[in-house]
Amino acid sequence: MKIKTFEGNVTFPKGFLAAGLNCGLRIKKPDLALIYSVKKCIAVGAFTRNKFQAAPIIVSKENIKNPIQAIIVNSSNANAGTGEKGIEDAKKMCSITSSFLNINEKNVLVFSTGVIGKFLDMKKIEKGIKTLIPLLSNRYNQTVSSAILTTDKMIKECAVEFNIKNKKVRIGSIAKGSGMIEPNMATMLCFITSDVNIKKSVLKKLFLNAIENSFNLITIDGDMSTNDAVVMLANGMAENNIIDKTNSKEAKIFYENLLFVMKRIAYLIVKDGEGVTKVIEIIVKNCSTKEKARIIGKRIANSMLVKTAIYGEDANWGRVLAALGSTLQNFDRKKVVIKFGNYIMFKNEKPVKFDEIALKNYLKNNEIKITVDLNEGKESISILTGDLTEEYIRINAKYRS
Amino acid sequence: MKIKTFEGNVTFPKGFLAAGLNCGLRIKKPDLALIYSVKKCIAVGAFTRNKFQAAPIIVSKENIKNPIQAIIVNSSNANAGTGEKGIEDAKKMCSITSSFLNINEKNVLVFSTGVIGKFLDMKKIEKGIKTLIPLLSNRYNQTVSSAILTTDKMIKECAVEFNIKNKKVRIGSIAKGSGMIEPNMATMLCFITSDVNIKKSVLKKLFLNAIENSFNLITIDGDMSTNDAVVMLANGMAENNIIDKTNSKEAKIFYENLLFVMKRIAYLIVKDGEGVTKVIEIIVKNCSTKEKARIIGKRIANSMLVKTAIYGEDANWGRVLAALGSTLQNFDRKKVVIKFGNYIMFKNEKPVKFDEIALKNYLKNNEIKITVDLNEGKESISILTGDLTEEYIRINAKYRS
Repeated sequence: MKIKTFEGNVTFPKGFLAAGLNCGLRIKKPDLALIYSVKKCIAVGAFTRNKFQAAPIIVSKENIKNPIQAIIVNSSNANAGTGEKGIEDAKKMCSITSSFLNINEKNVLVFSTGVIGKFLDMKKIEKGIKTLIPLLSNRYNQTVSSAILTTDKMIKECAVEFNIKNKKVRIGSIAKGSGMIEPNMATMLCFITSDVNIKKSVLKKLFLNAIENSFNLITIDGDMSTNDAVVMLANGMAENNIIDKTNSKEAKIFYENLLFVMKRIAYLIVKDGEGVTKVIEIIVKNCSTKEKARIIGKRIANSMLVKTAIYGEDANWGRVLAALGSTLQNFDRKKVVIKFGNYIMFKNEKPVKFDEIALKNYLKNNEIKITVDLNEGKESISILTGDLTEEYIRINAKYRS
Repeated sequence: MKIKTFEGNVTFPKGFLAAGLNCGLRIKKPDLALIYSVKKCIAVGAFTRNKFQAAPIIVSKENIKNPIQAIIVNSSNANAGTGEKGIEDAKKMCSITSSFLNINEKNVLVFSTGVIGKFLDMKKIEKGIKTLIPLLSNRYNQTVSSAILTTDKMIKECAVEFNIKNKKVRIGSIAKGSGMIEPNMATMLCFITSDVNIKKSVLKKLFLNAIENSFNLITIDGDMSTNDAVVMLANGMAENNIIDKTNSKEAKIFYENLLFVMKRIAYLIVKDGEGVTKVIEIIVKNCSTKEKARIIGKRIANSMLVKTAIYGEDANWGRVLAALGSTLQNFDRKKVVIKFGNYIMFKNEKPVKFDEIALKNYLKNNEIKITVDLNEGKESISILTGDLTEEYIRINAKYRS
């Protein structure tokens, strides 16, 4: 299916407005964002399973049971590890937002990202939200995209348009990624809006399925954040005939577009991973089960030794072999084939002679493919990760200062 | 119990000789080591569970069922991922060694460490072994200790002496560590010799128990090698009354000394971990089960974000909290206490105010303690790891070149 993409973000679909600004949590960069729909939306979400879920996650998991009309997000402070006061503050962010927008506080979602273990400066946030309201606009603006970032270097946006029968339907998105990314059911911060008209149960199913095949296939450093969430709002303003079955042709069109958006954002998150200079795709092929392929892929993707080798443009496939073996999964060593790009490195339980110069050139690319073929079944998986560099250390050694 | 330590290594106990030299696998540094006992030894070992066990591991696991009289070890090439030819080569290393020593090849153990996926240069090794034989000596020499190293910066040795009734008994050891260390039942390369007179089944039990409480409590980067092994030889030449019960007073004395040796070597391995500037001790206290404490401790110890924060001397305890939560273990958030050294950072589900300057000074130390107290039970564990630095990246980005 051909996907039609556009420059745009959460304001791309009909009826969505947004704004971002600096409210003083950070020195200069925008740190507060508001997304608003003129009509109430059905909303679905996936949240971090970390046992120390941040306060806003706890509040939003409750509120998302209701129709949603606004999302308020701050960066710089995660409001995590902040106990009951943290929960009060998160609720207050909802009630301040709702009072200025003249809606019910239960129809607001709240998110925070940044340093763990500090209380929010609520005065700055309250003043910030008040200032945000008149800035709300449906025009494309990047301030909202940048206001949710932490150590990210690039904004992450995606917008697509497609037809459901004769109606134009749109999906827009913004996200923040960088470090501490190993999604587990839930993911990093990503907000998706759409004007699609869809039944909530159908949206939920397609949304979770798309997450499984996008965000749950990336990893930066194996660390799972306290604040990760992917949330999607749909306000129905495209006025298409309601999508009420997951197996309809219309549901399929919608799903393919949603999956495209999520995959694109997932890719951008890896590409902009802390210190990443190369995107690495780990493909585990012909495995007996999907779950086994996933375990193996994740293990290789999280191996610091594999990641540093790729950074060094060193064809050290032995580390892939060691990571594969360390999963303790069963497989036939004699059937395993390991490839870097199209170059076979290991086959028939023996190293394979390869063209060192051609391979060296291949490893200079910014996108590196490592394939592990188990030749035992039909399941495959592709995991995206980044290399591990001195820059990752520099970013994370002094994060608080 | 007071432990008496000495300068010494595997030649410290009676009847053990050793030698090391450069046989040309590396440019200059010693790369081949031989340990020999004038009397046959009972031998016990623990080996990596990696599914891609290297060829020498496969051969040694078989031979160790017999009495052992010699161990031949090369560095620079791991002889892993080398299929049947690799196994032939490993066996050949045993047979060459045995023929020169005039013993049976089944009484020889063989180990290799270094790059994965290259065939051994058997000509160099054969010549090397031949040259090693006349160099065998019971005098303390560090060449044998350095010949088994790869990226290690320091040799790792330990020697102790104690009395079993009126007999002096000795234990000596050498090891190689550095990166790719997350022991799982087995560990990195470590050779332990002793002149103790002990029943094999008793030695095995005490040996595995000591490993569980030393090597299995350290981690550098969570990667499990294809070649890891800890092996112990005992030749009985101390002539003490045989230790034939695990619960005897003599067994306890022996165990405490063996545990000391293993803990010392484990500490040295972490201290000399690739790029490590600080040794970090993760203490998980008052947990309901030992296994849960171990899972939590390992998770925190392997968190790249925790490791980089300690490197940056940054009291970012929020990352400890996030790592704890990401284990998905059950615990009461309200009971959790997190400490850096003696400074409480988190209690009653709230950040605790601390003296920033005093803490900054504490974090300048080379040994940092992080305590997570769950206040729910009686089990505790202490895991050693190192910080994560640019140096680790530099070492591992260009390992093969």
